Amino acid sequence: MKNKKKAIVLISGGMDSAVCSAYAKKDGYQLAALHLNYGQKTESKELKCFENLCDFYSIKDRLVVDVDFLSQIGGSSLTDKKIDISDADLESNEIPSSYVPFRNANILTIAVSWAEVLGAEAIYIGAMEEDSSGYPDTRKIFFKAFQKAVNTGTKPETNIEIKTPIIDLSKKEIIKVGKNMGVPFQHTWSCYKSSGKACGKCDSCALRLRGFQQLGIKDLIDYEDGF
Amino acid sequence: MKNKKKAIVLISGGMDSAVCSAYAKKDGYQLAALHLNYGQKTESKELKCFENLCDFYSIKDRLVVDVDFLSQIGGSSLTDKKIDISDADLESNEIPSSYVPFRNANILTIAVSWAEVLGAEAIYIGAMEEDSSGYPDTRKIFFKAFQKAVNTGTKPETNIEIKTPIIDLSKKEIIKVGKNMGVPFQHTWSCYKSSGKACGKCDSCALRLRGFQQLGIKDLIDYEDGF
Repeated sequence: MKNKKKAIVLISGGMDSAVCSAYAKKDGYQLAALHLNYGQKTESKELKCFENLCDFYSIKDRLVVDVDFLSQIGGSSLTDKKIDISDADLESNEIPSSYVPFRNANILTIAVSWAEVLGAEAIYIGAMEEDSSGYPDTRKIFFKAFQKAVNTGTKPETNIEIKTPIIDLSKKEIIKVGKNMGVPFQHTWSCYKSSGKACGKCDSCALRLRGFQQLGIKDLIDYEDGF
Repeated sequence: MKNKKKAIVLISGGMDSAVCSAYAKKDGYQLAALHLNYGQKTESKELKCFENLCDFYSIKDRLVVDVDFLSQIGGSSLTDKKIDISDADLESNEIPSSYVPFRNANILTIAVSWAEVLGAEAIYIGAMEEDSSGYPDTRKIFFKAFQKAVNTGTKPETNIEIKTPIIDLSKKEIIKVGKNMGVPFQHTWSCYKSSGKACGKCDSCALRLRGFQQLGIKDLIDYEDGF
């Protein structure tokens, strides 16, 4: 156990990060888990999912970081109370109001700082290019550029690889792969609106529900009536 | 005034950021100022300098962000109370204990998020490659890579340029250029150790003092006896 290489997994509490944890575990790393509270409306529920997932994957090294600045800065319906969370429009090509500017970059830079202190050699992030909500910082081209920033901006002896194991998967495939890997989806949360029962209507619920429906599998979390 | 392009200036309260503000002003931008409190030991003094510099440059749009995570993560004598701040060794090629892992990347990602919300087209950062303390994320090669991450990780209509106007200058040249531009160095702070009188001994004091001495100019801030 002592000589295992370390990896940081970004665990938001959503399905993607849960599947990512399973990948990192399978790759043989000793895991450390990072969770960001960026003032999102459903943080209490997401934090609980984070803790449950860490327990499930026996992760002792946990770091929860408050990044209030993302709500100070605003611009997103997820963090700005003045902006309503709109219902999903999965056919639209526009970047939705839930977009938090440069969020993945913020998450990753924090992870890189921690990785350099921990001596971790990999950072797992559950970004998806195809089936995301169209956010620019979920694309391979962004991660490739960011990797270069990491290589040039850290100590010469530091080698940190950004890993995006599910970037090419659809939500449906993530659920399928996750099921096969034994991911406890009951300990994950996707809804942007509610910490009680999931609304079933926001972008994130819509993507999740569509994935489960396409596979004909029951989603074990609670939804408001009608979903 | 209304149609001026906006730029964010990162104002730590140090000399470099003060000179950077002068450059941004000269370049004709309407300025917004970002200051980060990362739990450094001298924050109270630095924040005061930030406010004074904003007043001096008539900057109304000010954002002070707490990034406690950098002290949570630790690893630097600037933020970790368990690590002593060592006296300067300007001849050493080693990265000193004051290095905050990936700090500039963290600062810049926050600035980019804010820039995207504000519609700012430039971010000024007072990084210096040659005369820095040997931190990897003060090098041109890092900023070039980070610029690509910005281009790929923000909305297609967003164009944010990272500007490093003093990157090729020495501390001596910064003071010289700053003097010519009327930069109020009495409103800047460099010492890593003290918020009262500057210690004169830490890396940052040593670089500052050497710069003023080389130019034969008096530094107007207070130092402990003997400097």
